[in-house]
Amino acid sequence: MPSAAISVPSSDRLVLGFDLAATFVFGLEGASSAIAANLDLLGVLALAFVTALGGGIIRDVIIGDVPPAAFRYERYVVAALVGGVIAFIVLDPLSHVPSWLLISLDAAGLSLFAVSGASKALTFGANPLTAVIMGAVTGTGGGILRDVLLNTVPAVLRINLYATAALLGATVTTIGIRRGLPRSRMMVLGGVLCFVLRVVAAWQHWGLPRAGAL
Amino acid sequence: MPSAAISVPSSDRLVLGFDLAATFVFGLEGASSAIAANLDLLGVLALAFVTALGGGIIRDVIIGDVPPAAFRYERYVVAALVGGVIAFIVLDPLSHVPSWLLISLDAAGLSLFAVSGASKALTFGANPLTAVIMGAVTGTGGGILRDVLLNTVPAVLRINLYATAALLGATVTTIGIRRGLPRSRMMVLGGVLCFVLRVVAAWQHWGLPRAGAL
Amino acid sequence: MPSAAISVPSSDRLVLGFDLAATFVFGLEGASSAIAANLDLLGVLALAFVTALGGGIIRDVIIGDVPPAAFRYERYVVAALVGGVIAFIVLDPLSHVPSWLLISLDAAGLSLFAVSGASKALTFGANPLTAVIMGAVTGTGGGILRDVLLNTVPAVLRINLYATAALLGATVTTIGIRRGLPRSRMMVLGGVLCFVLRVVAAWQHWGLPRAGAL
Repeated sequence: MPSAAISVPSSDRLVLGFDLAATFVFGLEGASSAIAANLDLLGVLALAFVTALGGGIIRDVIIGDVPPAAFRYERYVVAALVGGVIAFIVLDPLSHVPSWLLISLDAAGLSLFAVSGASKALTFGANPLTAVIMGAVTGTGGGILRDVLLNTVPAVLRINLYATAALLGATVTTIGIRRGLPRSRMMVLGGVLCFVLRVVAAWQHWGLPRAGAL
Repeated sequence: MPSAAISVPSSDRLVLGFDLAATFVFGLEGASSAIAANLDLLGVLALAFVTALGGGIIRDVIIGDVPPAAFRYERYVVAALVGGVIAFIVLDPLSHVPSWLLISLDAAGLSLFAVSGASKALTFGANPLTAVIMGAVTGTGGGILRDVLLNTVPAVLRINLYATAALLGATVTTIGIRRGLPRSRMMVLGGVLCFVLRVVAAWQHWGLPRAGAL
Repeated sequence: MPSAAISVPSSDRLVLGFDLAATFVFGLEGASSAIAANLDLLGVLALAFVTALGGGIIRDVIIGDVPPAAFRYERYVVAALVGGVIAFIVLDPLSHVPSWLLISLDAAGLSLFAVSGASKALTFGANPLTAVIMGAVTGTGGGILRDVLLNTVPAVLRINLYATAALLGATVTTIGIRRGLPRSRMMVLGGVLCFVLRVVAAWQHWGLPRAGAL
């Protein structure tokens, strides 16, 4: 019963497990991009770190929770770096994962980061608009930093409803919490909506319109 | 009598109107760049947001006013996004605007951001050097982030006296305020100087020297 | 006897001299990159500023020391900009410096920034992991920002043991200070190890492995 699990403090094993798993997956993805760009071991680990933790670090600097949580709890750094090391050793590990599974894992990470980012911003007194934007930043900021460092236009601004799904999840979570509904249930609901939208969009090749295509 | 208008609190309608207009124009410009880079609707809105509000966000994080003002007052986000939506619907709207008008609007936004950024930094206890740099960062930071995201060398570091004009306006404002002259008048003076320098530089193709060209 | 010198407050002339010299060298390097990219005088000075001071600014924003020290003490901005002006006037000055001297100066700056960054983070209550990362960020962050602005993949993520040397120096410093050993001696030890590793790596073309090359 995930909704109950997420209502307990963040030390709860299930939530923590999800959070570390998402950090690990994002670290793996960042490292794979770095390997494709021919960076060395340090570059691969740096990109794993930035991709997995960058979004949360930007959020925490903006809402004023410094040093950012990513630095205060060493398990997050460890999860990101383990992802990086595995990517480095098992050369291009993501190519061995079926794409439906990879997209699902990534979408799960995006969902978790988006709803937890929005929820945390509200806890720190942010207004609803800020909370929604912080949810999207938590989910997509790491990927944006990764692509800026690798000198490409950020993929999260281009691929099928990626940032849009994060905004949806963060918005549902924010509206629910502000209306006094249980935080845990709104996070689950927001996360599920984000996950479903992103996975279906990837599967059906849905995308937002481009200008001039209306 | 603008000098009087700017001396009243920031809730004053005229100042607020200018500020929102500048945010709108910068949003329009950021969105147009995103459209030219073939981003989808979300990417266009994200670039409108970053271009219009990024400079002020960097300033506020550096001077310690978090969450940044751009997030606390929803009207700024709305102004930036309205600019983005209009750019998206009216495909390439800036191509329909005479270039002298576009350069003037942009220079007005730059001027307003530069002097208000310097003034705010002083209010937060920054020393004069920091205030001048924060003025330039407020005026040019959004454009720099936009170009980094779109994977080009920032135009504001290259085009005719753009950042230079912002530094001039911020410097005049800072020196005047620190000498005890009326804040409002120094902001108007700094803003006018920034505006005039930038517009004349664009018109006359003035630029700073490059190394080796001395 | 440098170890004694570094144990006194940061106002000490020798430490201050080293710190300003490192800022100057990094400013010179940033400006040279900007000149190579054909930026104008303002762009050259902006890149000198960002390269010399960007790492420390990121560190201070993350550990919560705002406004960052780079803005509070005007001598640092002056040192960076003097480097920029000299690079601008003496076109491509670094080409006249023997490469062993240039690498040594740069390695000295990297070492100083890495150990002082780690030490400062500890002073602000950061945990050891954060201190090590902040040391590396202080040493390499400016160069990363420079390369992002100049639209290239950051060199510090690629060249021979550059960030690795910063991590080594920061780690030794952090472990020593946390074990109660004299701060000054640990900073000297960490700095010397960082310096030696970087210089030898540049000389011997040592590098970390790349994925798939194991």
